[in-house]
This record gives sequence, structure tokens and C-alpha cells, in this order.
Amino acid sequence: MDAQDYLAACLPRVEQALDAALPRADAPPARLHAAMRHLIFPGGKRLRPALALAAAEAVGGDASAALPAAVAVELVHVYSLVHDDLPCMDDDVERRGRPTVHIAFDESTAVLAGDALLTAAFEALVSGAGPADAAARVLAVRDLARAAGAAGLVGGQVDDLASAGGGAAEIESVHARKTAALIAAAISAGARLAGASETQIAALHAAGVAAGIAFQITDDLLDADEDEGTSLVRAIGEAAARERAQALLDHALAQIAGLGARAEPLRALLRFVVSRKL
Amino acid sequence: MDAQDYLAACLPRVEQALDAALPRADAPPARLHAAMRHLIFPGGKRLRPALALAAAEAVGGDASAALPAAVAVELVHVYSLVHDDLPCMDDDVERRGRPTVHIAFDESTAVLAGDALLTAAFEALVSGAGPADAAARVLAVRDLARAAGAAGLVGGQVDDLASAGGGAAEIESVHARKTAALIAAAISAGARLAGASETQIAALHAAGVAAGIAFQITDDLLDADEDEGTSLVRAIGEAAARERAQALLDHALAQIAGLGARAEPLRALLRFVVSRKL
Repeated sequence: MDAQDYLAACLPRVEQALDAALPRADAPPARLHAAMRHLIFPGGKRLRPALALAAAEAVGGDASAALPAAVAVELVHVYSLVHDDLPCMDDDVERRGRPTVHIAFDESTAVLAGDALLTAAFEALVSGAGPADAAARVLAVRDLARAAGAAGLVGGQVDDLASAGGGAAEIESVHARKTAALIAAAISAGARLAGASETQIAALHAAGVAAGIAFQITDDLLDADEDEGTSLVRAIGEAAARERAQALLDHALAQIAGLGARAEPLRALLRFVVSRKL
Repeated sequence: MDAQDYLAACLPRVEQALDAALPRADAPPARLHAAMRHLIFPGGKRLRPALALAAAEAVGGDASAALPAAVAVELVHVYSLVHDDLPCMDDDVERRGRPTVHIAFDESTAVLAGDALLTAAFEALVSGAGPADAAARVLAVRDLARAAGAAGLVGGQVDDLASAGGGAAEIESVHARKTAALIAAAISAGARLAGASETQIAALHAAGVAAGIAFQITDDLLDADEDEGTSLVRAIGEAAARERAQALLDHALAQIAGLGARAEPLRALLRFVVSRKL
């Protein structure tokens, strides 16, 4: 199973589900809705949603059961980018070759569009729930909130903004919260909505944390010329960072070794996290 | 039943539950946690949490079952104040006699503390859920997300910021989303977690929307000298606005007339919304 083929195969379902989870661009307040959609469409490779779908398949479930998790995690990811780009944070004017939301609209609209995307994530995560899967949805809400909140993404961003370098452990702690928590939530919530056991979820979550840190190290390796933010590459050098990413990937794959052949798409995606060239 | 007595009786439970829902101020990242708590403690009268508890009692349930809803709605309320106070929005430097979060800390910390409070609201709303009430929690998450998101609070704030006056209908539409949606969510989610029927929830939600608009009109009457934001008082005059608030209160009370004597605390709170002097 090739990771890029799997990503491409997931894309139509993910795009359609994201579109359905967001208010129509022409419904009032149209400016807010357009701002919410600005960084969602056109999107990137949708790695996090694909991880959610692959995790569902990895536990023998139906990928479509994981769509609410796939959408929710992507909405949280994009909200965090919109707020990170704000003038008071990273002050970025361009992302993926387009103006950031606060440039294309204005600063207050960017704050509010991010707020609405974060809120929409939780709405998406419970949409279409029935009595049979209500308990799984509740736990997915808890897990996503922990991954996105003060103990996860937001706390990681605070420490990233405050960071004056730090050692390898501090850097990995920022990566674990700012990047890996949400990647782990994509995998564990996807599996959870597809009926995974708690043992499976724990293994998948651990795999997601390790792979998520490796993802961020790979990002920093690909952007090695950019002197921005917390970076293990700057702290320990390119060769050691590459080695560390590989060790994390091996650890992630070991966590899910027991899942058998149906976990091959998930394994391919985890390998892609480290081997990708963009 | 006197509303102020009921509010005072709810307070210790609400304060304790809010404290338990937030990360400790001295745990790292301490700056984020302190910023999250800055506008929560000391708090106001905690009207929204009390409405959630009273709604639970109004349907014959246990007020303590509504505590997750009470906490969640207060966290959403406070997050919205933190973001509304930002320089790019209302640019307020003081609230309740204390510096706003972006003044006491800084702008990026205020954005992130608001984000973390919004996220913590959803975590609080599902905390302690069991198989028996998972379905109710899921619906409460959906309802809170709708009240807080693009169709509710955030959309109302966008239109409020953009508003150049508008007629009475436009003003009430802003109030309905920016203020009343969350008040209605407090009432309906509180009742939902206490086992209310869908019919009861629909009646309570309608009462909450009407009372919530009346709440905002009353706010504007109490601040009639302040020339800020969307105000029905400025649009139709003080006497007509007072009459409109009373009509909305009557409508709210009519919605819940069938709930009997156990709804008296809730009725007292709804009357207080219009009769309060601060």
C-alpha cells in the first residue's frame, strides 16, 4: 500500500465531509463563513483525516465510521493555523501561497473564524451519533478536547512562543503537545468511532504520539533553512535529528505490530510522515 | 423563591466545579493557566450556571446532574469575553474593575487562554459521563457547539462588530445569537443532563431564547449612557425597550407554565434577568 495512493483515495470523502460540516459560504454572516473556509479549501494532503480513516480500518472497522473524527481533527488543525498566523503570534502573511486569514479578511474576523472552526470541530465529532455509539463519541470528545486544550495544542503553542531554545527534552515536549497530540487524537478517535477496544486505542495513541513528534522533526528537517520556532534540528544537528525521527517511527510501528495486515495503510501513512519530501 | 438567594445557594457548588474543570494555576505552562483563570476567579453572579441547575430542578431532576452543563456554559461565556476584549475587537482594558486578560498578560496569551477555555468547556461537558447518560451528553455537545459557533455566539459577534445600527429586527437577531443562544443552551443542556424529555427541552430552549434577548435589552437599559455596540434602547427608545423586555419575559414564562412548582427557582431567575439593577 502506497501512502500517497491512500491519501488520494481518502481525499474525495474527506473534502465532501469537511464541506458538509461548515456553513455555506453564501449564508449570512457570509464574511465569517468565507473566512472559516479560506484556509480549509483548497486544503493540503489531509494527512490527519487519512490517519483517522486508516486507524478505523486498522482495527477492522469501517473507514466511514471515522469520518466525524477525521473532520473534527482537520477543523482543529486549521483553527490552530489561523490563530498561529495572527499578528500577535507568528505574524504570518502567507500560507500555502495564499494570504493568511487575517490578511485576506482582518484580524477580528481571523480570531472569530478560528473560534468558529474549533467549535465546529466538536459539532462535527458528535454529528450523526446514535444511541449505539454515543459512549464512543463522548470519549472522543474528551480525547479531542485534551489534545487541543491547555494540556495539548494550546499549551504547546504557549511554550513554543515563550521558548528560547531549550534542550532536546523541552523541544520534544513542545512537539508532543503542539503537533503530536492532535495526530494521536486523529488516530485514536478514528479507531474509537470504528469500535476499537481500549487496548487497541492505547496502542494506537502511543503510536500517534511517537509518529507525531517524528512528523514535526521531519518538518523541521525539510525547513532546515528557516530559522523559526522550536527545532530539534537546530538543537542536536541534522544527522541526529534524522536518526531520532527514525527511532520514533520504529517505536510507533512497534506499537501497532499486533494489528496485522489490515493496519498496512496506517503503517504506510506513518512511514510517509518521516519519508515525505514536502 | 428569591432569585438572589438561589444564585447565592448555587455559588459554592459552581465555584468548586469551575475550579476542578481548570488546570491548576501553578502547573506548567503556569502563564497560560493563570490567564485562563484570570477572568473566571473572582467571577460574577454565575447566572448561566444557576440557570442550568434551576432547569434541571424544573424538570424534576437533580441539580448536580446539570453541573457539567453549568461549568461548560460559563467557560464558553468567559472565553467569549476574553476574545471580545482583544485590541482587534472591542479593545477593552478593564472588566469588572480589573485589567482584561490581554492587559494583565499579553495579546497572544489572551487569544490562547480563550481558545483553551472554549476547549475546556467541551471537556467539562462530557466529564464524568457514563453509559447511561452518554446519549444526553452527545446532544448537549451538539447544542452547545451550535449555540457557541457560527450560527450562534460567534456569528452574533461578527454582525455586532459590523453593525452600523440596523432596525429592531436586526438588533434582536444579534442579541439572539450573541447573548440568548448561550443562555438558552445553559437552560436546555442543564435540563437535558437531568433527564428532560425532548418536549420539555424544546419549551425550555424557547424560554431561554426569549429571556436571553430580554437579558441583553436589560443590560443595554442599565448601560444606557454607554454608546457602545448594538442596542435596542438606542433604536426604539427606553420606554419601548423596557416594554419589549417585559413582553419577552412574559413569553418565556408562558413557555414553562406547564412545569409546575418545581420550576419556581427557574422562573425567579428569568424574572431577575429583567428586574436586576446590575
